[in-house]
Amino acid sequence: MTVRAVYALTGDVRDARSRAEALAVEQSHEFPPDLAPVKAAPSRAHVVGLEERGPDLALATVEFPDDLAGDELTQLMVMVFGNCALLPGVRLVDLDVPAALAAAMGGGPALGVEGVRRALGVPDRPILATALKPVGLPTEDLAGLARQFAEGGIDLIKDDQGLGNQRWAPYAERVPRIAEAVAAGNAVSGHSARYLPCFDAPPELVEERLRIALDAGAGGLLVVPGVGGLPLLRWLARNTPDDFVLLAHPALLGSLAVSPTSGIAPGVLYGSLLRLAGADAAIFPSYGGRFSFTQDECRAIADGCAGPFAGLPASLPTPGGGMSPDRVPELVDFYGRDVVLLIGGELHRGGDPRGSSERFRALVESVV
Amino acid sequence: MTVRAVYALTGDVRDARSRAEALAVEQSHEFPPDLAPVKAAPSRAHVVGLEERGPDLALATVEFPDDLAGDELTQLMVMVFGNCALLPGVRLVDLDVPAALAAAMGGGPALGVEGVRRALGVPDRPILATALKPVGLPTEDLAGLARQFAEGGIDLIKDDQGLGNQRWAPYAERVPRIAEAVAAGNAVSGHSARYLPCFDAPPELVEERLRIALDAGAGGLLVVPGVGGLPLLRWLARNTPDDFVLLAHPALLGSLAVSPTSGIAPGVLYGSLLRLAGADAAIFPSYGGRFSFTQDECRAIADGCAGPFAGLPASLPTPGGGMSPDRVPELVDFYGRDVVLLIGGELHRGGDPRGSSERFRALVESVV
Repeated sequence: MTVRAVYALTGDVRDARSRAEALAVEQSHEFPPDLAPVKAAPSRAHVVGLEERGPDLALATVEFPDDLAGDELTQLMVMVFGNCALLPGVRLVDLDVPAALAAAMGGGPALGVEGVRRALGVPDRPILATALKPVGLPTEDLAGLARQFAEGGIDLIKDDQGLGNQRWAPYAERVPRIAEAVAAGNAVSGHSARYLPCFDAPPELVEERLRIALDAGAGGLLVVPGVGGLPLLRWLARNTPDDFVLLAHPALLGSLAVSPTSGIAPGVLYGSLLRLAGADAAIFPSYGGRFSFTQDECRAIADGCAGPFAGLPASLPTPGGGMSPDRVPELVDFYGRDVVLLIGGELHRGGDPRGSSERFRALVESVV
Repeated sequence: MTVRAVYALTGDVRDARSRAEALAVEQSHEFPPDLAPVKAAPSRAHVVGLEERGPDLALATVEFPDDLAGDELTQLMVMVFGNCALLPGVRLVDLDVPAALAAAMGGGPALGVEGVRRALGVPDRPILATALKPVGLPTEDLAGLARQFAEGGIDLIKDDQGLGNQRWAPYAERVPRIAEAVAAGNAVSGHSARYLPCFDAPPELVEERLRIALDAGAGGLLVVPGVGGLPLLRWLARNTPDDFVLLAHPALLGSLAVSPTSGIAPGVLYGSLLRLAGADAAIFPSYGGRFSFTQDECRAIADGCAGPFAGLPASLPTPGGGMSPDRVPELVDFYGRDVVLLIGGELHRGGDPRGSSERFRALVESVV
């Protein structure tokens, strides 16, 4: 069995063959081929395809022996995009991982689309999400907002990624209080909103902060794998309750997808890789917001979340980054029903977060 | 006290002011300023300087209240480069962190240049390093190489970042055996070479694999923070013995520095940030090798490792990526004595790793 990766090589295509061969060596042996011991041959990656796409672009397909990943996500990442992350003009644009390897790595979403729907009791409509912010508000104010969002019918109420353990609303105080507020909101509305605290704990606090979230009755976590590492996301997916939703935030990580000619293509990063690491849903900056992805890139992300990959459950694309309720029809039309619609600041416009949430929910229910 | 960050904004400078203001909001409140509650004002970041550098470039200086980092490295990273990592044309080019905050985060190298020199018994010459590879060799072969490098006078003998827990040389077998081989080499040569196993353990194996390395007498670790996360590096710096060397590898992480107009400038990434996270030495792809940094970028990295920053000990720049012994005079001339010179594959040329190591060491000793 092999892992296959496709790299877009930008630059004079007459160099593409030698660059592709060098890449396969860099990502496996990282050793001069003329000096490599014969007995190491089974650990070499090889170029199995090279397709010219123009004078300055070629797609190189590289096959890696799957033993090179050693059944660990960490090594898989080093293998498919470790050193070549240092090379301009090299972009990882497609990835295929054998299902047996993905299973051995213990990767993949514990819930995925179906599990999240079951956990939320939302069988088929788009899922609604919002963020508690701004950082700097005291716990009581954040809890008050959370209650209004819960009463208004938001499904996933997450901390902003900027909410850590600052003095304004320390984690150990904030998480139980907001979870309580969301439960109180649910009791009024009859909905089943979940609170997802921001989880960016350093290693020595991972177990303690997870315990606080679980004891509080949080329904999942907002994870920031660009900061805490993809392996922590994977660990959480394997070590949290069966109905615990893991939502990945793109802070820092998203830098990998920004340059069009280097890094990792959005569909592979927000789709395949985050899915492999265990994200049930992946936030990304949607077209038409404050950031810069095109519709094609957003389509690729949605496909990366939902398409066949390594035998894993599908995850939920979670477009955000400057969305507003009036875009709901268009977003549902574009992304379909299996989506989390994340609207942050705009639900505060008008000073009535509960009312805005109700309108957001009514809009979602009306378009499906 | 404030954290100051400077961002290079590429694009029409007439938009620079509004982009800078939006950036300061994005990286703190991430909330429409017209809707932000007054009581959250103390957590807002502000633009304190804007300098035009041409028709398409401006430098924006943003000040963050240091409470926004909540005394945690994870939140500091979200704060200075979380969401703006998603923006093309925004590059973090300078960072200043108050010493009190860096200390509260428990950041910084436990050893730094002086500590590494003391641990190695190398008071003033450049430090020699090499890598055990290629992956795919059995443990005995890697141990044989390690012994030759130790006998030949290499100071730091590290696993290749591609050595994880693969079947060819599983971690629990490899680490004690290679540590033993290095000790045997030292007994012959009278040198004090150290073995640094590659450490990319997933969270559930961190303590077990660290224990294996410590029990084996490894002298430090090769850490891959782009994969395992900067917080794990910081944890290791705080939870390993006083003379334990932490060498950071740029796999994946280096992608942040590849595009000239987005991500994080090399000096900040390999210097300030890795130093803050606790790297005693930071490997980066030197000019004149297989990768693409210019001399200016390499100079900035060396300055980022050694210059005043957050009251932290200096770290050791570790240029690598296709170096060869014949470049020693030039590299020492460029980087100075406080440097780790990393030469990998080229020490194998000629089939005599011990002899190559001896020549490498003699060259280093002759030029200082």
